[in-house]
Amino acid sequence: MQRLGASKASLSSVSSQELWQRSGRLDKGRSSELLRFEDRKGTKYLLSPTHEEEITTIVANAVQSYKQLPLRLYQVSRKYRDEPRPRQGLLRGREFLMKDLYTFDATEQQARQTYEEVRKAYVAFLEELRLPYLTARADSGNMGGDLSHEYHFASPHGEDTIISCTACDYSINEELYVGRYIPERTKGPQSSAKPAVERYVSKDRKTLCKIYFPANHGEPNLYAVKAVFPDVDSSIQGEQALVEHAEQSNRTVISFLDPRLSRESMNETAQTVPEEPKSPPRTPTVDEHPILLTKAKEGDSCASCRDGKLKLQQAVEIGHTFHLGQRYSVPFEASILDANNKQVAIEMGCHGIGVSRLIGAAASLLADRKGLNWPLAISPFQVILVPAAKVEPAELEGIYDSLVANHDKEQVMDVAIDDRDKPVGWKLNDADLVGYPFIVVLGKSWKDRRVFELQCRRLDLKTEVDANNLVGVILECGAKL
Amino acid sequence: MQRLGASKASLSSVSSQELWQRSGRLDKGRSSELLRFEDRKGTKYLLSPTHEEEITTIVANAVQSYKQLPLRLYQVSRKYRDEPRPRQGLLRGREFLMKDLYTFDATEQQARQTYEEVRKAYVAFLEELRLPYLTARADSGNMGGDLSHEYHFASPHGEDTIISCTACDYSINEELYVGRYIPERTKGPQSSAKPAVERYVSKDRKTLCKIYFPANHGEPNLYAVKAVFPDVDSSIQGEQALVEHAEQSNRTVISFLDPRLSRESMNETAQTVPEEPKSPPRTPTVDEHPILLTKAKEGDSCASCRDGKLKLQQAVEIGHTFHLGQRYSVPFEASILDANNKQVAIEMGCHGIGVSRLIGAAASLLADRKGLNWPLAISPFQVILVPAAKVEPAELEGIYDSLVANHDKEQVMDVAIDDRDKPVGWKLNDADLVGYPFIVVLGKSWKDRRVFELQCRRLDLKTEVDANNLVGVILECGAKL
Repeated sequence: MQRLGASKASLSSVSSQELWQRSGRLDKGRSSELLRFEDRKGTKYLLSPTHEEEITTIVANAVQSYKQLPLRLYQVSRKYRDEPRPRQGLLRGREFLMKDLYTFDATEQQARQTYEEVRKAYVAFLEELRLPYLTARADSGNMGGDLSHEYHFASPHGEDTIISCTACDYSINEELYVGRYIPERTKGPQSSAKPAVERYVSKDRKTLCKIYFPANHGEPNLYAVKAVFPDVDSSIQGEQALVEHAEQSNRTVISFLDPRLSRESMNETAQTVPEEPKSPPRTPTVDEHPILLTKAKEGDSCASCRDGKLKLQQAVEIGHTFHLGQRYSVPFEASILDANNKQVAIEMGCHGIGVSRLIGAAASLLADRKGLNWPLAISPFQVILVPAAKVEPAELEGIYDSLVANHDKEQVMDVAIDDRDKPVGWKLNDADLVGYPFIVVLGKSWKDRRVFELQCRRLDLKTEVDANNLVGVILECGAKL
Repeated sequence: MQRLGASKASLSSVSSQELWQRSGRLDKGRSSELLRFEDRKGTKYLLSPTHEEEITTIVANAVQSYKQLPLRLYQVSRKYRDEPRPRQGLLRGREFLMKDLYTFDATEQQARQTYEEVRKAYVAFLEELRLPYLTARADSGNMGGDLSHEYHFASPHGEDTIISCTACDYSINEELYVGRYIPERTKGPQSSAKPAVERYVSKDRKTLCKIYFPANHGEPNLYAVKAVFPDVDSSIQGEQALVEHAEQSNRTVISFLDPRLSRESMNETAQTVPEEPKSPPRTPTVDEHPILLTKAKEGDSCASCRDGKLKLQQAVEIGHTFHLGQRYSVPFEASILDANNKQVAIEMGCHGIGVSRLIGAAASLLADRKGLNWPLAISPFQVILVPAAKVEPAELEGIYDSLVANHDKEQVMDVAIDDRDKPVGWKLNDADLVGYPFIVVLGKSWKDRRVFELQCRRLDLKTEVDANNLVGVILECGAKL
């Protein structure tokens, strides 16, 4: 954040419902995740899950000219979301620690440049953690704006599925994936393709939407259904949709036919419910391009490069960048005089990293049966000194000083000394449990020959090192953690 | 906190109402200051103003033996109180930052020793701030326990009044002060002393309490009234008390006579309301010692040393230490096996410093018309480098490095460089506004003779210093900030 020229801010964890009313987010779908309360005077508040409303209000009062921009403000603070399914400890909690950055630019072009800088900073941070990560194009959803990315750790514990291409940089959250039909690569309509049908209903129950898709391609892709039938009630499908639809008057039925199916195959589908009206099938398209109605499968062709194959990975989202545009600056009247002395709304971005979730995800990725393991970049201490034989405190502190001071300034080394009154075996187990990247044991070899034992569980390392080489070996091994 | 051997913890800002029910604090007077809310399932929560309930629950599960004690846990976190009168910015807000330390000991003796250590650490911290402070004996009030102290900054902006002795170390919050009658020093009953009367009523309205006090000694001391008439409704006095009492059946009237008044003088008081029943006067006593019924006045005799005079100072409370005893360990079943293998409740203490309030108080104490001034101990940066003439970045960074590295390790110096593209006058005004303890200007004298201008507004210092002496002069002057 500092390299981006961002200044640290600290906003209240409490926001007024009035502000959220103004942005239109108080009564949206998300609102059920808001924890609300009133003070002794009956004023309505909420525990903020994010701070666009608050910070835009502050900046609207503080900034009047394009000369005061760009402005970048970040904070690391507790945020709240009334999760319906809190689970896996820090991975999905109702109180969480989040780093959020808000960016303010005078023009859209500058805002998109800022977005690019932030995206690079996020990637640089993920590189530094040395954990397998994925970035994916994302939907801006409730946040507004038209450009956003998600940042994930690849993890079997993840609740997201990221679809990426083996050949190009295409990468997208499964929730947003809509397969494109590429005639020259996707197998075209075949009379042999067995069709299946799924039924959806609109929110007002008046329209029934029938989705015909190739049975051997798995289940229908709800996101593709939404793309062609935006009014879909995504919580209802199948027989229930049919029943709810049948209870309405002024009923309509529309059908979509996956481009891999022939029109004739549609008629082969069992018309299980006799009273269901027939309708002519449409080809599902987005921007006039035919799309596939099924979910992605491992090995599907990539529609972006047309050469690669898709692969699916489980992942934990740990960051998100959004170009917001004027989504918040317009309702909160955050405007400036631009270089032409014209009043314009500020261009904004917001960018978050789930700090507590990242800690939980890193822990679950690197833990083994002996305990945790921390990436060097976020480990509070890189080294723990464990004195096994009787070692004088002054001697320990001398070693501590040599580790902390005796190396390049860019490579800060934080060292802990385990001077607790416990047996050495207990201390070593505890150090493994806590997950220090390096353990330096002052044991028998230290007593006899002034030689340390250096342990690094992640590198399966247990070796003797003398005092002159200790820092060098730690820095060298550290480059792999 | 580290010197006390305390470990850093991080508890949720949200607590369950169930826990507060268990400690009996949910429905007490204080409860009106609790901000409460429910989640989507209707579970009841509150925004914690303090964490005795939570931490005792955690420790009860983690600690089983006296061998695991002493245990000291602290945190710095956001806390909440629905203040009826939030004001003066950080001085009294509804969201505030607080450092709270919880201590756990096996025996009362050890707990009192811990208390003493914490008290000394708090005093050492206040000494380091080099701001005028007061410590005062305090009431444990709602917290439980029988030993507590308050820590204050003397400040005209303060809402507390601290009464202290010019000769001994007696010091107490006015809210807790009850003057003792010392026959050999306090002027005894004099027929010349003109009496005044104030009326109070009990919470059930059935008892009227008449307080006779010397008219020339100012107003009655409500805390003294409470000491002799514990049932007093402190919100009602005078005519209103009389009226509310008159509406009740089974009425009683009690009277207390300040020991400085003669019994006869009581009868001289105008019996303004004829229907008011008479009652024989009592001498107000605490622990069989007669007390005074009026508030302390500057120059009153000290009842503790009997030599000194009392002085009254406005003050801002910024810290509080409590010996809690078993107030929370009993209801939360936080017990251990002691050295005799006997199950006993843990002895606890809790100790807070209002971090955001301290920042607000320090700011208001040291600010002048040019801007803020920060005590060296809490200033994020001790020095700002302001380049006036054209100075190369590399040159600036060289000076920066020499300031940061070129001195004793115990005296960490954090330095900022103002490299913003602004005129030097603007930068100097801004540095004054922000309140850096030291400003180092690289101006004309730097250009001509490689000599810095060192400014320190608090010490009214503006002097030329050459590169060799800069660190020395800053450290020397810093000892006064």
